[in-house]
Amino acid sequence: MAEEVILLDYWPSPFGTRARIVLAEKGISYIHKFEDLPNKSPLLLKMNPVHQKVPVLVHKDKPVCESDTIIQYIDEVWNQSIPLLPSEPHQRYMARFLVDFINKKVYESSIKVWMGATEEQENGKKELVEWCKLLEAELGNKLYFGGDVFGFVDIALVPFYNWFIVFKKFANFNLETECPKLVMWGNRCLNRDSVSKSLPTSEQVYQAYLEFKRGW
Amino acid sequence: MAEEVILLDYWPSPFGTRARIVLAEKGISYIHKFEDLPNKSPLLLKMNPVHQKVPVLVHKDKPVCESDTIIQYIDEVWNQSIPLLPSEPHQRYMARFLVDFINKKVYESSIKVWMGATEEQENGKKELVEWCKLLEAELGNKLYFGGDVFGFVDIALVPFYNWFIVFKKFANFNLETECPKLVMWGNRCLNRDSVSKSLPTSEQVYQAYLEFKRGW
Repeated sequence: MAEEVILLDYWPSPFGTRARIVLAEKGISYIHKFEDLPNKSPLLLKMNPVHQKVPVLVHKDKPVCESDTIIQYIDEVWNQSIPLLPSEPHQRYMARFLVDFINKKVYESSIKVWMGATEEQENGKKELVEWCKLLEAELGNKLYFGGDVFGFVDIALVPFYNWFIVFKKFANFNLETECPKLVMWGNRCLNRDSVSKSLPTSEQVYQAYLEFKRGW
Repeated sequence: MAEEVILLDYWPSPFGTRARIVLAEKGISYIHKFEDLPNKSPLLLKMNPVHQKVPVLVHKDKPVCESDTIIQYIDEVWNQSIPLLPSEPHQRYMARFLVDFINKKVYESSIKVWMGATEEQENGKKELVEWCKLLEAELGNKLYFGGDVFGFVDIALVPFYNWFIVFKKFANFNLETECPKLVMWGNRCLNRDSVSKSLPTSEQVYQAYLEFKRGW
């Protein structure tokens, strides 16, 4: 059984970015394989036949699919460092709830900003401000969502925060007035090595958007 | 701080059913409040302002929303009995993956059978058979998805199995030839007190479908 860790990834994917960040946070060496999404590799189709999506972590020849599940799996297997999820049950619940909220609401509104015609894009921006205010209220005066330690919710959200920076350029989307604490949180995250080395550049994100529009 | 447990619920909901089953499995006493979905209660709107959906568990005055998260929360707080999730990380991952698969694929195809016109309903049935075959392959010769012990995946799936029984009546949907082991698993689950007492009747499910069609 191969002990090696493989990450099947697509560089601009916010979900792939989550996997990269958690692997970097835990100091795990891995083989990084990039997918050409219109021509998915046989390994991807074998490892994730149901959804056929990146990211997929392959560990001991077995697949782990879906980015939030990848984070929890890595946290449970490489458990020598500070856990990424809180230990208190209601705080654990809140972390899971917020990641689910990001997966659904933040993702869906972001797609409207990426893909929508003018009116839909404006609606997406309004929704995003609303979601970011909710997230900022949840963050409060803490350094990170879990307190003093960078964790599950931070890893799930920061790839979208990186999208927001790109939205500033082409959709006039600005959080600085509405959500100053969330912007400070975002900058704090961007200063971490595990994050800065894992994020795609604005150009990579924008190119992915163009590919997305072409319909893969 | 109130130690009491409240479940905000809607009797025919498969997601509410999951919460009822896990509460019964753990032997937890609770106050059961039923929602009139077109006129949601102030407590529901206060406890789940983002999604405004049932089920919501209220414990120590704090909300726990989303049925799969409720199951994990209850398992972590009332942790004296056999855990509902396996302890081995890849098995834990598989349980989470399958529940996510049920939430997305099984739910979406089931809605096609409920709501679709003839062609869409036929597509929904075909998809459901495909998903059930995948689930049956995952079940293998085990008693339950986690092995000998009724657990997370069983709780998540059995409310949909109850839907399949209703589909048999009005949509000529039959799993007995295609997935005999899954049918045996379903009957095994239905024989558990925690399940049989928590499931809505066929009539309740059908009435919910009619309400659903009216557009809440």
